[in-house]
Amino acid sequence: MNDRPSPFPTADDRARSRAAKRMALLEAAVTMFNERGFHATSLDDVAASLGVSKPTIYHYLGNKDQVLIECLKIGVDDLMLADEEARTVKGDGADRLTYFLQAFGETILRPFSRCVVRTGEECLSKTSAEELRAMKLRVHHAMCALIREGMADGSIACADPNVLAFTLAGALNWPARWYDPAHGASPSETVAQIVAHLREGYRPRA
Amino acid sequence: MNDRPSPFPTADDRARSRAAKRMALLEAAVTMFNERGFHATSLDDVAASLGVSKPTIYHYLGNKDQVLIECLKIGVDDLMLADEEARTVKGDGADRLTYFLQAFGETILRPFSRCVVRTGEECLSKTSAEELRAMKLRVHHAMCALIREGMADGSIACADPNVLAFTLAGALNWPARWYDPAHGASPSETVAQIVAHLREGYRPRA
Repeated sequence: MNDRPSPFPTADDRARSRAAKRMALLEAAVTMFNERGFHATSLDDVAASLGVSKPTIYHYLGNKDQVLIECLKIGVDDLMLADEEARTVKGDGADRLTYFLQAFGETILRPFSRCVVRTGEECLSKTSAEELRAMKLRVHHAMCALIREGMADGSIACADPNVLAFTLAGALNWPARWYDPAHGASPSETVAQIVAHLREGYRPRA
Repeated sequence: MNDRPSPFPTADDRARSRAAKRMALLEAAVTMFNERGFHATSLDDVAASLGVSKPTIYHYLGNKDQVLIECLKIGVDDLMLADEEARTVKGDGADRLTYFLQAFGETILRPFSRCVVRTGEECLSKTSAEELRAMKLRVHHAMCALIREGMADGSIACADPNVLAFTLAGALNWPARWYDPAHGASPSETVAQIVAHLREGYRPRA
């Protein structure tokens, strides 16, 4: 029996190769969206940065709107991972919320989630804008649930979980606009400093 | 002597008329920038919304980039008024900062300042982007100064005024993206709820 690997790709090989190509295209696209903005980004430039042609992008992803919404989906899914991780944290509700905020803030500074903050809904088609709004609402609801659990066990002081969630998200989203690794603190240090301020705000007073 | 007003405008009349026309054009433009985004806004549509022609806009303001930067200047100047007002508040540093945050947050929800938050620097020419960054830095420094004064008189607990200023600004800027008057609370109520959370964060512990 011949023990050399077959030169013919299996169905699994092809699926892996396809997924890797899609991800390489999405990473190139999200980098340009974040640097230049959606409107100033051309798929020709995205394709050229990988040495492929625009039809390759159409083949794997579709048109520019579809490329953007795929990037945003990854960005929101990554934020939801912060919630999944926070769910495994031992301790009280405030501990889980604080863990979530740190993970959320660090994720925001990675390209796909950063793109979620930097992209206005007005860039998207009506259908895509609604899809994005529904995805963001999942993150908001996850944050509200963590806040409510901390209120229930007495570890979080809060008048309105909805407003607190917007306050926390705003503070942690904003670095997507201003954070520049060239100026000092690492993403995790920067986020930790912001989270420390936010935590003081919801830590109950004796 | 004839006591009817002269039908011929004085230099003052002409200056006032010119200022009123500029402001009407800027208000029409900022409304569209906020609704559609900078790229999807055409000066033809802005002009049409006032029943004038595009050359009228060029005459009073210049091209689309120049119109945008004029809107952003008004937006930043309005934010600086929040600092001027806060400076007159009797009380301690925390009282002045809290006043500033409330005025800042309400100003952010008005069209010109809202446009400052909604507009990415990538929309602007390099020169205009630098100009905008310098203007925003004035607001940031004003906020840092208020924080330092509260730290000095013991009314504000803070490890790093720079990080706290970004945290507070982020939380109060974010409603420029999500706040919709159709859903309940007024701008000032919404901002007051956010500021209450933020204030808990910098109020010293006994």
